[in-house]
Order: sequence, then structure tokens, then C-alpha cells
Amino acid sequence: MAKLIEPKVLKGFRDFLPEQEIERRELMTRLEETYKSFGFVPIDTPVLEYTNVLLGKGGGETDKQVYHFMDHGKRDVAMRFDLTVPFARYMAAHRHELYLPFKRYHINKVWRGENTQKGRYREFVQCDFDIVGVDSPSSDFEILLMMRASMQNLGVDKCTVQFSHRGIFNRFLENLGLMEQSVEILRIVDKLAKIGRDEVISLLTEIADGGRAEKIVDFIEAKDTFESTLANMTELAGGPSEDTARLEEIWAAIQDMGLECSFILNPSITRGLDYYTGLVYETFLDELPSIGSVCSGGRYNNLAGLYTKEELPGVGASVGLDRLLAALEELGQSSRKKSYTKVLIFQMDGSLMGHYHKLAGQIRLAGVSCEVFPLDKKLGVQFKFAEQKEIPFGIICGSEEKAAGTVNLKNLASRENYEGISLEKALEILKA
Amino acid sequence: MAKLIEPKVLKGFRDFLPEQEIERRELMTRLEETYKSFGFVPIDTPVLEYTNVLLGKGGGETDKQVYHFMDHGKRDVAMRFDLTVPFARYMAAHRHELYLPFKRYHINKVWRGENTQKGRYREFVQCDFDIVGVDSPSSDFEILLMMRASMQNLGVDKCTVQFSHRGIFNRFLENLGLMEQSVEILRIVDKLAKIGRDEVISLLTEIADGGRAEKIVDFIEAKDTFESTLANMTELAGGPSEDTARLEEIWAAIQDMGLECSFILNPSITRGLDYYTGLVYETFLDELPSIGSVCSGGRYNNLAGLYTKEELPGVGASVGLDRLLAALEELGQSSRKKSYTKVLIFQMDGSLMGHYHKLAGQIRLAGVSCEVFPLDKKLGVQFKFAEQKEIPFGIICGSEEKAAGTVNLKNLASRENYEGISLEKALEILKA
Repeated sequence: MAKLIEPKVLKGFRDFLPEQEIERRELMTRLEETYKSFGFVPIDTPVLEYTNVLLGKGGGETDKQVYHFMDHGKRDVAMRFDLTVPFARYMAAHRHELYLPFKRYHINKVWRGENTQKGRYREFVQCDFDIVGVDSPSSDFEILLMMRASMQNLGVDKCTVQFSHRGIFNRFLENLGLMEQSVEILRIVDKLAKIGRDEVISLLTEIADGGRAEKIVDFIEAKDTFESTLANMTELAGGPSEDTARLEEIWAAIQDMGLECSFILNPSITRGLDYYTGLVYETFLDELPSIGSVCSGGRYNNLAGLYTKEELPGVGASVGLDRLLAALEELGQSSRKKSYTKVLIFQMDGSLMGHYHKLAGQIRLAGVSCEVFPLDKKLGVQFKFAEQKEIPFGIICGSEEKAAGTVNLKNLASRENYEGISLEKALEILKA
Repeated sequence: MAKLIEPKVLKGFRDFLPEQEIERRELMTRLEETYKSFGFVPIDTPVLEYTNVLLGKGGGETDKQVYHFMDHGKRDVAMRFDLTVPFARYMAAHRHELYLPFKRYHINKVWRGENTQKGRYREFVQCDFDIVGVDSPSSDFEILLMMRASMQNLGVDKCTVQFSHRGIFNRFLENLGLMEQSVEILRIVDKLAKIGRDEVISLLTEIADGGRAEKIVDFIEAKDTFESTLANMTELAGGPSEDTARLEEIWAAIQDMGLECSFILNPSITRGLDYYTGLVYETFLDELPSIGSVCSGGRYNNLAGLYTKEELPGVGASVGLDRLLAALEELGQSSRKKSYTKVLIFQMDGSLMGHYHKLAGQIRLAGVSCEVFPLDKKLGVQFKFAEQKEIPFGIICGSEEKAAGTVNLKNLASRENYEGISLEKALEILKA
């Protein structure tokens, strides 16, 4: 006999047990329902693409993490590392087959050969939604509303979307004469919630003199109200502009809808190293802010510049499914359902196989998930199976019941029995 | 300005436009609903695995088609080429966390670097369902029922599941002294429907003498009835056995359910080069048999022998999504829906942004998909957008309507107008 192969998975990759996969799929389905209800349409793109198409300019941090290789035809191919670059390529390739504004969602896996030490995975799911071909406050606002609606439809009522405007921050840095240091400054600013005011000032002082470091912290700290925070940002950025007007329009719409409690202007939100140019957003769970943003995004001025001369401005966001699952588990909101089966038909007599499957078919026709135990085993074994799969009801039926046209229904949790009842009656109980 | 990159996809890979992806997702969702209703649970496994874990013994036709490479950590890794091998590895790895019989479904992409000339794709979706840990007629029968139910739930009523038993065929070949030529014989037998009786005999005669070639054709040709076909198979295979008894049990259950019209015993079905050992199945569309089997499978005696000493017999099948989509298109049964949006709220006045999104929220709360046109554009542009996205209704609302608490609803196809109605009334019409 050949030596057995150890059935191991790669570091950073995961198998999902049924109870985990049921929950993951339920979350993805609910997100999809939310996206659909806002008029978004699904697309799909290949997992493998030409490496130079995905990486474009080359260089940078991402590239080292990308899984790429030579295929059988000596093409340099890469597995997608996000859903944004393929979307940009897609828009350029199919522009003439689509209309604008185009609202798409894409929920699927991406791969990055990252260091796994921080509890990061090399294979994970992104849940993206974007509106491209339009630069308007209404679209910015729609994405904000979708971030909130996504969380609510996942059963997370207590969350806050924090937003700011990258354009105002950039103008502020320009005024300070610090635009060239913006990458490092953004890195530091991003840590405000984590390391606190004093530590941020101390780090900033290494880049800018004390006065300017203080000014940066003054800019990024939220004040008491939207109005006072925006007034402070506006003043420090050199006065009103289209960007500050955009924030005012968004806030007016938030007030029209009475949603002031769900949205906070927080100037420390910058989405540091990303390609955003306008509104930027992050979403925090009120009961678990420490886990970080579970849904982030923003506005960019040109999606597909690598592939087409047509400028495609857009705005979008992405739900971090894995982080969200971890949060739900920590909050005790995981579902952990073992199966979808509502009723198990016990096998009492192998010669009734056709009858059992006929009953099962009738039960399914009524919209109730049902399975037939497929073996002649002791009842104890069959009860154990139902318990392991957390099936709530059992139907026990021998040749007498078949002849009488009845079934015995058992509530497997409460042990309540309904003996010699019609299938119609059983369905009433199962659907109650 | 940098040179633009051509936004091309790899040969054998595909982008999916919204109308294509909507249809694909609907088919996958309906298959999933079918699988769930039969008590199957979902699992997921990584796209990338250790190459030696996926390929096991190595060699063979498949291996050359597998996308594999060295990752950043100098591990030889491969993209999965089917969902069966990962499932076998999964069962061995998680056996102690699971129960038997275990019924799983897995709907996801796989990759093969095949020749694309025959209209084959290098990235395609498999829709697998298997019952492992049990060798019983009830499980064999359940898979048969699921193949039929899957097609019915996809709206394909006219289909026939053809089945046979690989064990009986093997015993027949053994009796003929042709077991060593079985691979070539299976290849030829598989072509009966395509090339006809005479051509099959002529090909078989190159392997076996004329008398035995005739006998093989006699074996694989279906007779008038299940009974006469089975009698012929039984006789040629050397008499009754457990395998012939299994077919009789299955047929009795088919008769109990009155499904004789949907299932045909066809001894030429062997699933030639696969690993099956018992029942084997294929599904043909009555109106388009030429496209080949859209759902195939069978019984195997040991799923995970590469990874564990525990014998795991099983039975399962797989729906070929791409072939099915092609068939539905050819039969004129494609849906080709452009979007999910039921109603578009036109932008008449930018200052009403909050009001428009508030209306949209109320409409969504009633379960109706709704979107807001995000720009101040001429009505003609907005109507054009609705037409391109095939949105059936429009809501037109200015400040007067806002003040009066009413909306104007328009059926965009019939041009019917409902002016100055309440939102409740509009929802009644939208939901009708």
C-alpha cells in the first residue's frame, strides 16, 4: 500500500466546516441582497490575469505579495490581489457594452502572499461595491447609506460610519508646505485612535517642526459638532472650496434623513495609502471599535487610467468579510447553524425506500428542507445523526403508517410526539 | 503620459457582463436551493493547495493541465482542477469534526490549462454534490432524484437521467477476458450515441475478435424495457449479483414514485475514465441531447484513499454550469435580465437629494429594489439610462410633490402615469 499523503493546507489558507461556510454564505447573501436593493449589478472577472495588466506600473509593496508565475504557454500570469484593479480593466474593456453611471458589486476571493503572523490570511473574500462614471454628492451619499444598510442587514445595528474628505486634507498639507511628506504623515495620522494625541505629535515632530505638527493634530481632531469640525478644517485648509461644499451637501442630506447619529465627520480618516481623492469612509462597530473598520472606501478621480484615456471618476467601498465574521463571533452574534435540514425521515424498513423518498419530495414541495436517513441502522444511531446535524424534527414511518397514509412526527428537541397524523398536518407543524 | 495597457484577458478565461453574471448567479442559487432542500451542507476549500497533495500519485493526463508554480516560500503549489480531490483531502483532514453519512455541496471555480480549441474554458464552475460514508441504494437513489430536481428547479422539465452500473460492466468484461483492455473499450463504448452501432463494432474489433466485439455491443445496447435490459446485462455478466440487485432496488423505488418516464437504464453509460465503481449517471436534455450530459456522476468505493486508511464510499454528481447555460441559451430559455432595479427615482432638483434617498429607503424597506439617479441631467438622459438598465418604473418628484407628500409614478414600458399618489399607493402598484 502506498504511503499516505498528509491532508494539510497551506499556511494562510483555510478549509471551512459546514457551520462556518453556512454563516459565511449567509453574510455574503445578505450583503448581496443589500447591494441589489440599491440597484447594483454583479459582474465577474477571471482569477488569473496577465501579470503586467494587473500590476501596471510595477514596483511597490503589493507586487511582492502577488502570486504570479509562468503558465504552460509561457505567459506571465497572476492571481488577482484585489477586485478594484480587475474592475478598472473590465471597465476599459467593456465600456462600449455598458452605460454610465455604472454600479457594480463583486463578492469574491483575492490572494496575497502576505506575512501571516498578524492573523492575516493569504486567501480572503472582498465584498466591493462601486459607482463609476459620476462625481456627485448623491453618489457619495448613496455609498454612505449602503455602508450603514449593509451592517444593518447583517444584524449589526450599532455601528458608526466615520467620514472625511481627502481633498481637504491634501489642500491643508499643501498650505503647510508638507505635501512631499504626505505619505509619512498619512501613516502617522492613521494611528490617532490607536496611539493617542501625544504620541502622534511626537512622531509628527520628526517630520515637521513642532508648530506644524500641532497644527496637523488640530486638523485631524474631531470637534463637538459637524459644523465646528468642518469650520476648523475649512479654516486650516485655507477657506471654503468645492470640497468643503461637498461635505456640507452630504451633511444636509444626512439631516434630511434624520441620520445624524450614524455618521460622524472625523478628519483623521484619510485612507492613508489608497488612491482616494475625495470623500473617504470607514465603519466601526460601536460595541467593538478595537477590531478596526469593517467597511471602508472613498471617492477616486480616475478608475481606469492605466487602460483607457476616458476618465472614470467613481466612489465605492468594500466590506471586510473575515474581520466582520471575527467581530460577530466576539459579540456572540454568530449563527453557527449546522445544517439547513428541518426534518429527517428515519429509515425503519429498507423496503420502504421509495415511500420515504416520495414523502421527502412532498415535504420539499411545501418548501421544507428534508432528508432521508439512507441506511438500516438502529434508531439510536439515527437519533445521534439528527442531533449532530441539529435537525429539529423527525418523521418515523413503517409499513403500517404507509398503509394508513399517516406519519409519526417527532420534535427531536422537546421530544413531543404527533402520532398517526396526515402529512398535511405534519407540514402545518413543520411550517409553524 | 504613460503608454496605455491593453485591458485584455487570458485565452480560455472570461469576463462576465451583468446580464450574464445575473443569469449565472441565478442558476447557482437555484442549484444551491435544491441541494439545501435535500439536506446537503456547503463547505469551502482553498483555491491553492500543495501540488503533491492535489496530484497524489502524479503522472497522467490531468497533471499536465494543472496550473502549478513555486510560491514565495518555495512551496510547489497548484490551483485546484476539480472539487473532488480537495473534498477527499478535506474529509481526511476533518473526519473527526464531521459525522457520517456526510452530504456536502460545493459550487465554485476550478482551473485547467486545457486546449481551448474545442470551446473549452480554462476557468469554469463546477457544482458538486456528494454523499459519503455510506453504500446504500437509498443514497444512490437520492442522487438520481437530485439530478432530476436540479434540472426541474432550473426550469428544465424535459430531461432524462440515464443510468447503469459500472460494476456489472466490469464483471462482463472480466467474463470476456477483456479486463486489461477496459480503458480502450470504455473509450469506444462511450461513443455509441455519437458514432452508432456499426462504427463501434468496427473500432472494438481492433481490440477484441468479432464475436466478443458483437457481445460488447449487445451488452451496451438498451432493450425495450428496464426488465429486458437488465436481464440481458445480467446474463452477459454471468448471472445475478449484488450489483444487479442494487439496480432492481433502485428501479422499484423509481416505480414507487411513478418516475419511470424520467429514468432510463442505459448500459452504454459507463463514465469511462472516471473513478466510479457502482451506479453511474448522466443527464440529457430531451430537446437538446446533442449538447451531451449536463449532470453526471456515480458511486465510488473509496473517496480519500490517498490521505487516510478509513474507507469512505460515496456517491455524487456534478452539474456542468457552462454547458447548461449554453443549452438554455440555445433553447431560448436564457433570462438575460439587465438589473434587479424595479424603480428609478429621477433627479429633478439636486437640493432634494436627501428626500430622494429617503424615499428610496422607504421603498427598499418594502422589499422593492430602488435606485436614485445621482446627477442633474436632462430627463431624456435619465429615461435613456432607465431603458439601458431595463428598469420598469420611474418616480418623478419635485419640491411640489415633496411638500404635498406625494410622488408621480410612471410605468416606463407602458408609459402609464400615476400622478400625485401617496408612496403607499405607489408601493401597491410596484408590488402588484
